Amino acid sequence: MEVYLDNNATTMVDPEVYKAMEPFFCHIYGNPNSLHKFGAGTHPKMIEALNYLYDGINAADADDIIVTANATESNNTVLKGIWIDKILNGNKNHIITSEVEHPAITATCKFLETQGVSVTYLPVNEDGVLEASSVKDYIKEDTALVSIMWANNETGKLFPIKEIGAICKEAGVAFHTDGVQAIGKVPVDVQECNVNYLSFSAHKFHGPKGVGALYIEKGFELTPLLHGGEQMGGHRAGTVDVASMVGMGLAMKLAVEHLGFENTEVRRLRDKLENAILEIPETIVIGGKDNRTPNTTLISIRGVEGESMLWDMNQKTIGASTGSACASEDLEANPVMNAFGSDSELAHTGVRFSLSRFTTEEQVDYAIEVIKNAVFRLREISSSYAYTPKNHVSQL
Amino acid sequence: MEVYLDNNATTMVDPEVYKAMEPFFCHIYGNPNSLHKFGAGTHPKMIEALNYLYDGINAADADDIIVTANATESNNTVLKGIWIDKILNGNKNHIITSEVEHPAITATCKFLETQGVSVTYLPVNEDGVLEASSVKDYIKEDTALVSIMWANNETGKLFPIKEIGAICKEAGVAFHTDGVQAIGKVPVDVQECNVNYLSFSAHKFHGPKGVGALYIEKGFELTPLLHGGEQMGGHRAGTVDVASMVGMGLAMKLAVEHLGFENTEVRRLRDKLENAILEIPETIVIGGKDNRTPNTTLISIRGVEGESMLWDMNQKTIGASTGSACASEDLEANPVMNAFGSDSELAHTGVRFSLSRFTTEEQVDYAIEVIKNAVFRLREISSSYAYTPKNHVSQL
Repeated sequence: MEVYLDNNATTMVDPEVYKAMEPFFCHIYGNPNSLHKFGAGTHPKMIEALNYLYDGINAADADDIIVTANATESNNTVLKGIWIDKILNGNKNHIITSEVEHPAITATCKFLETQGVSVTYLPVNEDGVLEASSVKDYIKEDTALVSIMWANNETGKLFPIKEIGAICKEAGVAFHTDGVQAIGKVPVDVQECNVNYLSFSAHKFHGPKGVGALYIEKGFELTPLLHGGEQMGGHRAGTVDVASMVGMGLAMKLAVEHLGFENTEVRRLRDKLENAILEIPETIVIGGKDNRTPNTTLISIRGVEGESMLWDMNQKTIGASTGSACASEDLEANPVMNAFGSDSELAHTGVRFSLSRFTTEEQVDYAIEVIKNAVFRLREISSSYAYTPKNHVSQL
Repeated sequence: MEVYLDNNATTMVDPEVYKAMEPFFCHIYGNPNSLHKFGAGTHPKMIEALNYLYDGINAADADDIIVTANATESNNTVLKGIWIDKILNGNKNHIITSEVEHPAITATCKFLETQGVSVTYLPVNEDGVLEASSVKDYIKEDTALVSIMWANNETGKLFPIKEIGAICKEAGVAFHTDGVQAIGKVPVDVQECNVNYLSFSAHKFHGPKGVGALYIEKGFELTPLLHGGEQMGGHRAGTVDVASMVGMGLAMKLAVEHLGFENTEVRRLRDKLENAILEIPETIVIGGKDNRTPNTTLISIRGVEGESMLWDMNQKTIGASTGSACASEDLEANPVMNAFGSDSELAHTGVRFSLSRFTTEEQVDYAIEVIKNAVFRLREISSSYAYTPKNHVSQL
C-alpha cells in the first residue's frame, strides 16, 4: 500500500482540477494577450478562476490578486517590493518577521540584511506560536512591513493573524502573511484579518505546481518583481500560464468547499494517527495539540532520528517528512524545532505527518502499524536510546 | 478552417510533450526535494529533461541551467542580479541593450534607470538589425552588462550574437541574450557564441506555458531573484514544477530535432505566404527578407490598419498579430516599427505572421485567400488609402 503523508510538502493534483486544465495544453492554447479568438478563447475560464480566488480568500473587487509561479515568488515580490519602495527609495528600514517562517521569507530577509535592512526575527512561545503582542512591541517608526505566516508548515500551528492584522492596521504598518499552509485547511479571510498581502501556492491544495498567487490590497501596490509586459495589471509580467491558472482557481474552489470535511474527517484521521503514535512511550506532539491545521502533526520520538524513521517508512512506501521539503536536501536540524528551544538531540527526532482529503482510513491504519514497528526497530539499535524500559517495548 | 499563425506569441503544446507531462499531475506528484520515493520518483525524468536542455544549447557540464517561470523571470533575474551585484554593491553603473528588445528587457531597464542606472538603448539599422560594432563603440569602463536579443520577435531578424559575444568577451563585459525567439528556429550554441546568460521560455517552442530557463555560465553566478529554498543549486528558490520541467526538456529535444524541418518546410510555407501577400501592391517585408528565423514575416500593407486586418482574419478563424502579444492589449504602435524609423502611418500597418512545424499547406492556402480579400475590403473603406489604382485592385 502506498501512503502519502507529506501533503504539507506538496499534494496530488485533484483529478477534477487536472481535467479542467487539460484543454489548455493542446487545444485552447492561445496567448491570453493576443487579440484573436485563440487568445480570447482562454478568457472565460481565466475569469472564472480569478473569481474563485477572490471568493476563496474574500478579497474585495478593488483589490488585486496576481498570478505568480509560486508562493516563493509572491513572498519575494512583497519583501523586495517593500525594500525598493519603502527602504531604498523611502525612509523606512525595518522589517518584522518570525524565527519560524518558510525559507522563502527567512532567506529573503537574510539577503535584505546584507543590503543594510534591519530585520527583527520574533521568537515563538513554548507552543510554537508567535504572540501578537510581541509584534506590537517591536513596531518602530521606521518599520516598513510585518510578515508573519498564517500557519506553520512543520507544526500546523495557527498564528494570531487577525490580532496581528489589527495591530498593524492601527500602527499604519503594511502586513503580509504567507498563507501557504492555511488555504484549504482553515478559513482565510483577508478583509476580516486586515491582511494587506497574502501569498499562496496552488500545489499545497491539490492544484498544480508552478503556480501561486499574491493578494494585494488596494492602496498597497508595489514595484513588481517581474518587469515586462502589462500582464496582471502591470503587477507581474510574463505570459500567463492559462492551464495552471485555471487549475489553481478550481483547486481553490474545491479547497474551500472541503473545509468542513478537512475539519472533521481529515482531523479525525490525523488524530487517530497521532494518538496511536503517542501510545509509544516518550513521544510528544511538538507545540501541543491546540490550535493547529487539522491535517498536520509533528511528533518527536525520543531516541529515533527523523531521517531513520523516514528511511524505514519509505521502505514500506509511506512518505512523510522531517521538516520543510524546501530544506530537506540538507540534513540540518529542523529550524522550527530549534526555535522551540529543544535540545539538539530532540531537534533531530521530529517527524511530520500531513494528511489530505485523499488520505484513507486504511492508509492510516497501515501507517500506524509500520510506524510502531519502525520505532521499535530503531530504538533497539539506537545509541542515544540505550535504555528502553521493557514494559514500553511490549506495548509496541 | 482554423489557422494559427501567431507562433511567436505562443505555441500549441506538442501532444508528445503533453503526454510526457501527464504522469506528473496525479500520479508522480511528490516534491522533488522530499527524501521519500514520492519525491525521488520525479528525479529520473527531471534529470533527463535537464540533459535535453544542456544538449539543446550546448551548455558545458560546469554551467548552470536554472528552471524559471518564463523568460521574463529569466531576464529579470539577470538584469536585477547584475544591478544588485555589480551596481548597487559594485562599481559599475551602465547597461547596454537595444531599442527593439522585448518588454521584459526594456521595462526592466526603464525601472533600473529610475534607480540611477545608466542604460544605452542601441538603435537598429534600416534592416532592423543591431550592428555588432555599435556594441563595441558603447562599452565603457563601468559597463556591467550587454543584453541583446538573439532573434527579434516581430521581424524574426537574427542579431549578430556570435560577434557581440566575442566583443563582450574581449572587453570583459558580461553578455546576456534573450533567446526566446531563437530556440527551435535556428541553432543556439552558447559556447560558440560566448554567451554568459541565455533566457528562454518553453511555450515558444511547443512546450507548456509557465516554465522557462536561464543559462548561467560558470563564473557568472548572480544574486538570485527568488530567495528561499535551495532548489536549482540556490540560484532559484521555489518548488520545481516537475511536469513543466519535463515538458520543457522534451520540447527542447524535439525543437532541436526539427531544426532541419524548420529551415526547409516551415521556411517554404512562410515564403509561400509572404510571396503571395507581396503580390498585393504597396506591401513590404519590414526589415527585408535576409537573415531571419524561418517562420516569421512582418509585413506592412499600406493603408490598412494592422488591427483591422486582425479583425477581418479573426472573423475567418485566422490568428496573427500586430506585434508582441505581451504589448498587444494596448494599441500603441509597434515599437519595432517605430525603431525602424517608419513614419507613423506605416507603424500601424504591420501584421506579423509566424508559422510552426504544425502549420499545413492547406492552412497557408486558406490564409492567403482570406488575407487578399481582407486587404481589398479594408483598402476600399480606408480613409488613408483613398487612391487605389484600379489595376492593383484587379490583381486582388
